[in-house]
Amino acid sequence: MVKVVDGRAIKREILDEIKKEIRDMVSKGYRKPRVATILVGENKESEIFLRLKDKACDYAGIDHIHLRYPESVSEEKILKDIERLNNDEEIDGISVQFPLPNHISSNLILSSIPPDKDVESLNPSNLGRTILGNADLVPCTPGAVMEILEREGVNLKGKDVVVINHSPIIGRPLSQLLLSKDATVTICHVHTKGLEDHTRKADVLITATGVPRLIKRDHVKEGSVVIDVGIRKTEEGIIGDVDFEEVKGRASLITPVPGGVGPVTIAMFIRNLFRIYRRRMG
Amino acid sequence: MVKVVDGRAIKREILDEIKKEIRDMVSKGYRKPRVATILVGENKESEIFLRLKDKACDYAGIDHIHLRYPESVSEEKILKDIERLNNDEEIDGISVQFPLPNHISSNLILSSIPPDKDVESLNPSNLGRTILGNADLVPCTPGAVMEILEREGVNLKGKDVVVINHSPIIGRPLSQLLLSKDATVTICHVHTKGLEDHTRKADVLITATGVPRLIKRDHVKEGSVVIDVGIRKTEEGIIGDVDFEEVKGRASLITPVPGGVGPVTIAMFIRNLFRIYRRRMG
Repeated sequence: MVKVVDGRAIKREILDEIKKEIRDMVSKGYRKPRVATILVGENKESEIFLRLKDKACDYAGIDHIHLRYPESVSEEKILKDIERLNNDEEIDGISVQFPLPNHISSNLILSSIPPDKDVESLNPSNLGRTILGNADLVPCTPGAVMEILEREGVNLKGKDVVVINHSPIIGRPLSQLLLSKDATVTICHVHTKGLEDHTRKADVLITATGVPRLIKRDHVKEGSVVIDVGIRKTEEGIIGDVDFEEVKGRASLITPVPGGVGPVTIAMFIRNLFRIYRRRMG
Repeated sequence: MVKVVDGRAIKREILDEIKKEIRDMVSKGYRKPRVATILVGENKESEIFLRLKDKACDYAGIDHIHLRYPESVSEEKILKDIERLNNDEEIDGISVQFPLPNHISSNLILSSIPPDKDVESLNPSNLGRTILGNADLVPCTPGAVMEILEREGVNLKGKDVVVINHSPIIGRPLSQLLLSKDATVTICHVHTKGLEDHTRKADVLITATGVPRLIKRDHVKEGSVVIDVGIRKTEEGIIGDVDFEEVKGRASLITPVPGGVGPVTIAMFIRNLFRIYRRRMG
């Protein structure tokens, strides 16, 4: 029998715990945590994510502000504002909503966010700790995947894990978190030849391509764990990378879309912010 | 016909180029580059590496000093000395020779080396740039592997690359450098089940286990590239991970041990140091 992961329940559990801890700290006289999010231009998916983050912040008792810029904003202007937020004692976390327009260097922006306010954990120094295996903050999506695997009791040691995504935000840091658990990790992507040869051998398959229903029954091993990070808005609604109806008959554990990795990603954002806040409050 | 990589020739070429550039800078009035190496306790392999690095420094025109500590030295003492070296304008690079005794936290020591003097490129912030794909300095052994593949014209895009090693110093940053070239990357290690199933499919096999002659003819694919990072001192002399005599009949390109990756690793150390020096001299 396949088990379907309830991402919303995991999110609620994490948020409830953090909400309680924040309430305790505020009752002891500490100010509320506060996060600033930078948004450039108009992007529907960014807006959806931002609304979900704001809602989770409200629920947990976290203040949030937005800095919105037109598509044409200069890199310099954003860097200056990040520096101001960095110097602002009342701001615990700084988040940049991706994607950014092409004329703005993502790497430069990420490097400019100080590691100790880096709620998305994408500053080089926080990313590097995923390689060293001593990360306290981890990027939200990889963190969500690891949280689900841990909560569902998936032992990764010696398992063949295949990740389809090699971006610096998802697949690359995720590979490091999986290696820290002694999994054998294969990273596939758009340039991979014979993708099915890899996926069919995976004890755990994690896919984040954004290609709706790419992964069919034939792509997965009997009894495997299938984690679907893909999100694509279509006329039928939000669709993941995995053909859920086909694959659920073959997997032992599967995440749905929506309601799987997505909500837990929001919870990881809140958890990173809370960890930063708690550290800053001493 | 198999091609055997001449690591010593690659090293010489890189050192000759850097030697010339240093001579040019010194003739313009700049001081010579200078590196400080920290050594704790007695370790034969560390001593061998240190001698090779010193020799390469002498050849290229780089000053070097050693800070030697007994096995019993405190973490605090080393951290204090690193801080002093950090503040010393005349020191361009700080290197810590691994392994360290168990009572000293490698991660703490690595984090304490400032990214802009981090000649081994193992500070979290420099490691993180391998994930972001914009690393200027890279750890020496992964850098040597990439340098050999590039000089030998191995196109990695879409190739199946298997790495046997998941340490933060070799396999983990190497995986990121390979992903930056759009290879499909599998990281194996001591917990991997069915190692041969992975290695037999590798277009490029990179092994760093330290188990002498682990990799036999049957482990590698016909026409593949085999890079041997293993170094083990035995009664027969220095032996790599690969059974060279068996495998050379099957591979299209192979690195010997000694004389393969090792010398290029030394050259990468010198190149990192030179890059730091040039940046510091403006």
